[in-house]
Amino acid sequence: MTAINETHDPKLRSWVATANVSGCDFPIQNLPFGRFRPKGSKEPFRIGVAIGDRVLDLEAAHLIDHADMNLLMAATAEERAALRKSLSESLREGSPKEKEWQLALYAQADVEMTVPCRIGDYTDFYTSVHHATTVGKQFRPDNPLLPNYKWVPIGYHGRASSIGVSGQQFKRPKGQTKPAGSDPAAAPVFGPSLRLDYELELGWFVGRANALGEPVLMADAESHLFGVTLFNDWSARDLQGWEYQPLGPFLSKNFASTVSPWMVTLEALAPFRGSFERADGDPQPLPYLDGPANRERGSFHITLEAWLQTKKMRDAGAAPVRLSQTDMRDAAYWTPAQLVAHHTVNGCNLQPGDLLGSGTLSGPAPDQAGSLLELTVGGKQPISLPNGEVRAFLEDGDTLTLRGYCERNGAARIGLGEVSGTVVGS
Amino acid sequence: MTAINETHDPKLRSWVATANVSGCDFPIQNLPFGRFRPKGSKEPFRIGVAIGDRVLDLEAAHLIDHADMNLLMAATAEERAALRKSLSESLREGSPKEKEWQLALYAQADVEMTVPCRIGDYTDFYTSVHHATTVGKQFRPDNPLLPNYKWVPIGYHGRASSIGVSGQQFKRPKGQTKPAGSDPAAAPVFGPSLRLDYELELGWFVGRANALGEPVLMADAESHLFGVTLFNDWSARDLQGWEYQPLGPFLSKNFASTVSPWMVTLEALAPFRGSFERADGDPQPLPYLDGPANRERGSFHITLEAWLQTKKMRDAGAAPVRLSQTDMRDAAYWTPAQLVAHHTVNGCNLQPGDLLGSGTLSGPAPDQAGSLLELTVGGKQPISLPNGEVRAFLEDGDTLTLRGYCERNGAARIGLGEVSGTVVGS
Repeated sequence: MTAINETHDPKLRSWVATANVSGCDFPIQNLPFGRFRPKGSKEPFRIGVAIGDRVLDLEAAHLIDHADMNLLMAATAEERAALRKSLSESLREGSPKEKEWQLALYAQADVEMTVPCRIGDYTDFYTSVHHATTVGKQFRPDNPLLPNYKWVPIGYHGRASSIGVSGQQFKRPKGQTKPAGSDPAAAPVFGPSLRLDYELELGWFVGRANALGEPVLMADAESHLFGVTLFNDWSARDLQGWEYQPLGPFLSKNFASTVSPWMVTLEALAPFRGSFERADGDPQPLPYLDGPANRERGSFHITLEAWLQTKKMRDAGAAPVRLSQTDMRDAAYWTPAQLVAHHTVNGCNLQPGDLLGSGTLSGPAPDQAGSLLELTVGGKQPISLPNGEVRAFLEDGDTLTLRGYCERNGAARIGLGEVSGTVVGS
Repeated sequence: MTAINETHDPKLRSWVATANVSGCDFPIQNLPFGRFRPKGSKEPFRIGVAIGDRVLDLEAAHLIDHADMNLLMAATAEERAALRKSLSESLREGSPKEKEWQLALYAQADVEMTVPCRIGDYTDFYTSVHHATTVGKQFRPDNPLLPNYKWVPIGYHGRASSIGVSGQQFKRPKGQTKPAGSDPAAAPVFGPSLRLDYELELGWFVGRANALGEPVLMADAESHLFGVTLFNDWSARDLQGWEYQPLGPFLSKNFASTVSPWMVTLEALAPFRGSFERADGDPQPLPYLDGPANRERGSFHITLEAWLQTKKMRDAGAAPVRLSQTDMRDAAYWTPAQLVAHHTVNGCNLQPGDLLGSGTLSGPAPDQAGSLLELTVGGKQPISLPNGEVRAFLEDGDTLTLRGYCERNGAARIGLGEVSGTVVGS
């Protein structure tokens, strides 16, 4: 379990002046990891840490001697804590490293980011009971929340090859659909998806591996997680409705998924943890999904927002509009530690760089929904935008941006940055 | 499309004498690819081609200058044909290469094999309509074959990290189950799977990549496939029954999957192709899944067998017993080309080394079933073994072996080798 220590002290200030600006996502208390290279170059990507509006090149700062993020992620808890301490101390105001490390800094505006590590396997979970219930009502009106939901952290495997970094543009997917109410014996329709959606998720990255056949116990589960990103699991709802029985979503999901470039570590999230308990009437987790640390501080308080900017808005210079705001703590029925313990209980091996999606983190209120499917009630109640446009689902040229941050009294605010993606014509 | 040429001539003989023995899996007409190293060494794996009971080291034979199978798999059709021609000519009786290449040969008995390439993403399909119907009856008695089956090549993503090579031993997986007939409000049971099964599949490996957003058309689909292996998709049926709704199988599958070490190329399979047509009453494939070449020769005639050897049999020196025999051509409702075209129609990018599982290739007759779930009717009709043991599902110490081969008049028999795996205690 991550402890609060001096690296979280809200009074800490950095010699990188932009890190001290109120509202900055990347103050010295954050120190998230990503991969970057100078814009326009074809150099290999290097490992960097965001500080204010800069990136520190860890190899140029002589903190590591390689550029393999997955190797760095496999570090032990002690090695990770030591690296964080070095970074925090050397980036503080008055540090003797300032002069040397100035030379290892790049402006974020001048670099290109990529997916933060090599993603071997990607698993998507389904941790919001609110999302599961609301969506379940649309797919199975008579049977919205299935009997296993409150016992099993439902998850399924996703496609790693089509995961891109913020800024990803992708073509509207084509495929088979079977419009509601059509003749059961009629052929399905083939064409571009007409119900293209986003999903507001967090992506938890695996750090330390476990060997095949060796489950990770709850007490150790978080030590196998490296950090968290924002994650948009784009979904074609019409493809999904027709294809998903009996083996789950496939082409409705694997055309593109977009991840934010900065992995915020579990150490940085330490001040934003909270207790985790089951509501009255809900069953307690089975013993392999339970533990005192998980009950005391298993949940995370992370505010999440979805913002839409249409092509018309962009062309007119209009700012994006917020579609919803939610919080992981209100949304997630299962904690990240429980996801790791469940994923490995059968002996499945997780590897550094594997990605665990949270599933759509819809909160309990309708305006806390993490997808258009929920916000527009399956497209039946389109959203009116300030410029007069309406949206039931995403249209060509729409840019969807997720943002996330952690705030509480007595702690420095930290941000997850943002993840943007744009759908272009089919 | 692969053409029959002189490399398939059944009269060809190799200067590797064991390749000329009747019934050999690896005659000179086959030439499958795999990765090997001397047994007991810790050297990097090298690329080899099986010939008789030997392995030819391609780097030592100066045919390639690297050991990256995925790079080799990304070759163009022309490069692949040229490599096959070189191998065939130089391994023929009377070739001037014999003396030089003798030094590049290893005995298969003296080498260790590994998974034949780096598997990025693994997708499992569900191509046998017989399997889908029989299993569907057990999971959904009122609704065995879902309305989408005859239109959509149903597939889902699987776990790449837990795929091992023939010889894999794995622990019996633990997890949640909900025994049939138990109180709906009662907690699920936690423990080792009691309904552990195998699945007889073929694994098609992707060669050439397609870019994200660029579907592969039917006419090009096979040029994106490199070769085929035997594939056992071990399944825990009790975990599966409880977890699989609504997002598909997860822990019931990802504890282990086992692949055979030799990839038999599409070029080698050329003589064993057949026409592909829909039975009366079945809908024709949608245009994106249809094409003249697929109709003429889209299917493959590959005989497949499952063999069981229990610990008691092994200890007594008793040979494995055959559980079933089937043929891909009778089992598969979709061709490999259709799997590629479907997988990419939404823009999903396939990469060299990706694995496409066929799904359990059960034929139409009960004794052509590719899993115990089918053979024992969900465990209700256990199989009696010659030594008096019975099996409803796999027990600890059981070794399950899949074998595959292609035979027809006028062509040299070629084999896929075998894939074995053993379940050990939990």
